[in-house]
Amino acid sequence: MKNVTVLGSTGSIGTNALELIASLRDRFAVVGLAAGANTSLLLRQVEKFRPKIVSVKGAEAAHRLQSLLRDSTIQVVHGTEGAEEVARFQENEIVISAITGIDGLRPTLAAIRAGMRVALANKESLVVAGAILQREAKASGAEIIPVDSEHSGIFQCLAKESRSDIRRVILTASGGPFFQTPLAEVRNKSVEEVLAHPRWKMGKKVTVDSATLMNKGLELIEARWLFGLAPDQLAILIHPQSIVHSLVEMCDGSTLAQLSWPDMKIPIQYALTYPERVDSGLPRLELERVNHLEFYEVDERRYPLVKLARQALETEKSLPVALNAANEVAVGAFLDRRIGFSAIAEVIHLSLQSHRLREVNSLEEVFAVDAEVKRQTQTIIAKRY
Amino acid sequence: MKNVTVLGSTGSIGTNALELIASLRDRFAVVGLAAGANTSLLLRQVEKFRPKIVSVKGAEAAHRLQSLLRDSTIQVVHGTEGAEEVARFQENEIVISAITGIDGLRPTLAAIRAGMRVALANKESLVVAGAILQREAKASGAEIIPVDSEHSGIFQCLAKESRSDIRRVILTASGGPFFQTPLAEVRNKSVEEVLAHPRWKMGKKVTVDSATLMNKGLELIEARWLFGLAPDQLAILIHPQSIVHSLVEMCDGSTLAQLSWPDMKIPIQYALTYPERVDSGLPRLELERVNHLEFYEVDERRYPLVKLARQALETEKSLPVALNAANEVAVGAFLDRRIGFSAIAEVIHLSLQSHRLREVNSLEEVFAVDAEVKRQTQTIIAKRY
Repeated sequence: MKNVTVLGSTGSIGTNALELIASLRDRFAVVGLAAGANTSLLLRQVEKFRPKIVSVKGAEAAHRLQSLLRDSTIQVVHGTEGAEEVARFQENEIVISAITGIDGLRPTLAAIRAGMRVALANKESLVVAGAILQREAKASGAEIIPVDSEHSGIFQCLAKESRSDIRRVILTASGGPFFQTPLAEVRNKSVEEVLAHPRWKMGKKVTVDSATLMNKGLELIEARWLFGLAPDQLAILIHPQSIVHSLVEMCDGSTLAQLSWPDMKIPIQYALTYPERVDSGLPRLELERVNHLEFYEVDERRYPLVKLARQALETEKSLPVALNAANEVAVGAFLDRRIGFSAIAEVIHLSLQSHRLREVNSLEEVFAVDAEVKRQTQTIIAKRY
Repeated sequence: MKNVTVLGSTGSIGTNALELIASLRDRFAVVGLAAGANTSLLLRQVEKFRPKIVSVKGAEAAHRLQSLLRDSTIQVVHGTEGAEEVARFQENEIVISAITGIDGLRPTLAAIRAGMRVALANKESLVVAGAILQREAKASGAEIIPVDSEHSGIFQCLAKESRSDIRRVILTASGGPFFQTPLAEVRNKSVEEVLAHPRWKMGKKVTVDSATLMNKGLELIEARWLFGLAPDQLAILIHPQSIVHSLVEMCDGSTLAQLSWPDMKIPIQYALTYPERVDSGLPRLELERVNHLEFYEVDERRYPLVKLARQALETEKSLPVALNAANEVAVGAFLDRRIGFSAIAEVIHLSLQSHRLREVNSLEEVFAVDAEVKRQTQTIIAKRY
């Protein structure tokens, strides 16, 4: 029996993780939950899983939750400090880090510092503070297991392989809903059209990032930190069927790949049960029913954010932080219908052009760059759109 | 520096292995060679690699070779006993077992009994005597590493996986040159048309087996013994591009796969360097240039031998031996233009119908069944064709 804590329990990864844990109750118990503003769903989760500590975003919501749970011994905390407290709760054995965006950074770091297994879905943490997280994991003995399907695939393929034998790691991208749409038509795609992802059911932010391929750009940077790879060892291929999640090309001509039905429960479960595997009834891949797998090079005119992400990957310093910050603001503005779809890349491009590159060696510096770039990006949007 | 011996050095696998060793001369030295009747090529190989022991098929050829090599200390032996002597030569560290057909069985067993690494390309050994070979390998500590691309792929995918977590292993088959030819036209395909394999350059026997899919049937049985799998864990998918060589479906919904350009040097080298990998300039797989990978179920009307192979896999006892024997004779008759292409399956079917199923627990029993079925099959061909 392992104690699991879910950070971001009401999000897409969080709810999937809890469904999975419910089906594996003889193996996993939930001891902590951290959520944002969706207190009604959190309350249902608390009633179902009876954790020992719970965190919500606001003080008022925490107070309300506390009074609803007054007959129990469940501890209620709030804010980022609350999420951090849940993350380092002493009974935790596995922490699923699935808060979206840079908000996940402090809680992820708290779990890593506590030296436990961290099932990492919050890719932004590694994007903006990969060096810091890896340094802290090394110091505490924390084990970072990726939850993103692509990185889980790489992790599985690398099992016994020596890092020095890797020639190249390829992450696949579905290409999003507009992979084959004429470029002129892509420009003004609506929020609804963008959110209709052809393969994966995910949160809104990630679904937009998937249409722009920024998601894959961030994943390149994530893979760099997870697996200690050089920028030129990382590549992206468009694979519209989303069956092959990643490929690892070895130096001797062999390539290993991981395939599965596009169901995020599969990598979530692997991160929980690793190094074991468990048959919990997750959907089987029957390749004879898929028939065709296609692979295409990425056209950077169609996906200009891939180019920017690659620059951030190669330049490092504050550029990945700035890229992520500008993207969070631009995607937010698109979802709020303040800017059009193709303006996402334009806004990020403008924001990065005016960014002053600098070293970032601490969380404080990361957050300072993040805040600065977010302000700047908001200003660009306000002025130009 | 590792000492390598090549059994079947003048065949397709053997010559590829020697080319590879020539390019890896800082890692591998050739100490033994065993060949059949192609003494002129063998002589060139001897001059190039200066082994310490050499075997040819006939006594006369051995005598001739001996006199040509009289100024050297190279030991010349002959016949199956000679090949066995080369196989268990005391300086061997790795033996590449690549004699075609059941002729490879005794030398393979000799290498296994000597307790070394056996890079196994002679699939017939495992098909007719899998239980015996595995028992002997366990006793001697020999390490059997597959050389067939499909089994090498499985071996690579299984690296750290627990056997009990495997749901299914899928071997891919190119489908041969007639995968999409109307059935009525396949019937009378000529030797030349059958030997024009679309993907792999291989020996004649294997190329015919690849067109009938018998090759894949034998590989199912081989995989059963190499990886300790049950018949219902083994499947075949047609994959005309021959890029994905095998897939291992795990119990948790993940499937691992090995891909490479169809070049047999890749699995041969892996069997030599395992657990390391070496960059020796073997061709890279660039999936963006392949574009499409297709997978189809096997149509047993088109490939009746798959059904027979599956029966042999499930029935065991003497049936795999009989299947292999009947196939060797039928393919030989086709290559000699005594029977047509579709008669290969008919002849094997007739031969197996009259086969008396029995236990086979020793090499003697294996060879007795083999001889009996070969006679029987020749008789069927003589009477009916």
